[in-house]
Amino acid sequence: MFREKIKVLDCTVRDGGLINNHDFNLKFVRAVYKALSEAGVDYMEIGYKNSQKLFSPKEFGKWKFCDDDDINEVIEGIDSKTKISVMVDVDRVDMDDIKPRKDSPVSMIRVASYVKDIDKAIYMVNQFADKGYETTVNIMAISKALDNELNECLHQLEKESRANVVYIVDSFGALYQETTEFLIKKAKDILKTKEVGIHAHNNQQLAFSNTIEAIIHDANYVDGTVYGLGRAAGNCPLELLLGFLKNPKFDIRPILDLISKEFIPLREQIEWGYIIPYAITGILDEHPRAAMALRNSEKKENYREFYESLVGEDEE
Amino acid sequence: MFREKIKVLDCTVRDGGLINNHDFNLKFVRAVYKALSEAGVDYMEIGYKNSQKLFSPKEFGKWKFCDDDDINEVIEGIDSKTKISVMVDVDRVDMDDIKPRKDSPVSMIRVASYVKDIDKAIYMVNQFADKGYETTVNIMAISKALDNELNECLHQLEKESRANVVYIVDSFGALYQETTEFLIKKAKDILKTKEVGIHAHNNQQLAFSNTIEAIIHDANYVDGTVYGLGRAAGNCPLELLLGFLKNPKFDIRPILDLISKEFIPLREQIEWGYIIPYAITGILDEHPRAAMALRNSEKKENYREFYESLVGEDEE
Repeated sequence: MFREKIKVLDCTVRDGGLINNHDFNLKFVRAVYKALSEAGVDYMEIGYKNSQKLFSPKEFGKWKFCDDDDINEVIEGIDSKTKISVMVDVDRVDMDDIKPRKDSPVSMIRVASYVKDIDKAIYMVNQFADKGYETTVNIMAISKALDNELNECLHQLEKESRANVVYIVDSFGALYQETTEFLIKKAKDILKTKEVGIHAHNNQQLAFSNTIEAIIHDANYVDGTVYGLGRAAGNCPLELLLGFLKNPKFDIRPILDLISKEFIPLREQIEWGYIIPYAITGILDEHPRAAMALRNSEKKENYREFYESLVGEDEE
Repeated sequence: MFREKIKVLDCTVRDGGLINNHDFNLKFVRAVYKALSEAGVDYMEIGYKNSQKLFSPKEFGKWKFCDDDDINEVIEGIDSKTKISVMVDVDRVDMDDIKPRKDSPVSMIRVASYVKDIDKAIYMVNQFADKGYETTVNIMAISKALDNELNECLHQLEKESRANVVYIVDSFGALYQETTEFLIKKAKDILKTKEVGIHAHNNQQLAFSNTIEAIIHDANYVDGTVYGLGRAAGNCPLELLLGFLKNPKFDIRPILDLISKEFIPLREQIEWGYIIPYAITGILDEHPRAAMALRNSEKKENYREFYESLVGEDEE
């Protein structure tokens, strides 16, 4: 019953790094890599490839920069078929930092872009393809994209880019399954030569079901994170995804072990998951930044006041 | 864009009572009733109508029995259009305890039944209808029902019962949206003279999305609980449901307030929600009782061992 083409990408350390300035220690990142390898997960995204000219290594952890040497320390001595992925943001990468794939432990580079920046994203992704990497373009904030602009963006990606995969990214956790279906069908329809992926956020507890919905409509690249770790409400829980997919290559048990040993203690230190202010920004289709600020304030549990502050703004 | 026929039933106090032996105090239950009334929720299910010959009031709280006098204390002095519902289990109610509707604060009685007990459920529900109540039959453990037996059960309900609504109950939180679609379509197809409802559990974070899926396929009665409160993984969060439904009669704000004031403190005292052992029983389509026992033991975080104990059992 399984579809062999489905590839699972774990972005626990990359998306989780948005909570703690990418400052996970080596022991933790190796534990994640080992468990993903044993579980048969296809890709592990380890962080961002940001320019050190733009961000200081004094302020951010290693996984904001993903030096090849640091990646090699993670994977050394662990038997694995799991490929390493890194993410780049438009305008934040030093293109000269990217070595040819044959000289790097990285297999895949994913370019995160808003619809408005798609020309830059295509320019970048084609260079990464030239250097031999597997590539994706991840279209962020898809719930805010106007239909005509999204159509043009997808047509450009099909004609002009060498990306292997185009992801629909529900940055605000705002999509319900009917809109997920609409967007995945549209992407599949336009992107005749590429695979389609989904990266979902869990503000409304819909990350997993939207991922299933995307799979039903032939998305073959799906993102998850261990125990749903990720900024704000977090992501599609990898353990649920592996429980759903029937491909015999996957084994949920190493992930269960990893959650017990690393993620239950971690949850005591940093916060993510189903928390009402994030649900509210999801319902309202807004960036979670106001909710993140609330959670760092003394009014962290004042949900009604927070809701009223968002719906009370006059936008006209 | 809203469908006026959709009725929201909150079963916070009833399903939540399964965690604490139905021992919520009057202040809490009144706060829930007041908030639901202000939010425009159609029904509040307050507990079970169990026989005091079978269960001792010394061992259980008031909402295991739902005496009319206790219900009157809850609703007294609160302006409300929210109707009161109680649940009965097959073989656990003293039919003589049920007064005529005109003499009771209760508007609706819901009979919870397995497929195998449907003859008893029909016998009971018809008596409640005779006494003037709105009535439902809730088919529990639907994920374990064999197709031929479920078909017969639904045909019997259509022909022999006077229930207004028949609910599909995903007791184990095992359904994915494709199976929810299949079951709701089947129920709608057979139950030509009745409404169809859904009661979902949240083991795999799918209670809300399965409820949306049921609405898409014309289920008009949907259950939720405040902040997802309910046994084990809990239920469809009412706040998400109200955020999704566009009927202008609903107001999410009193529910947000209620969560801040009552449910955040309550979650420190009793446990429910997305917890890995409940996810595991959902994935495996099993009753959560083994997971509930685990959570009361010293091995509460030994997820891998728990998983292996369930999949290692030889069933042949």
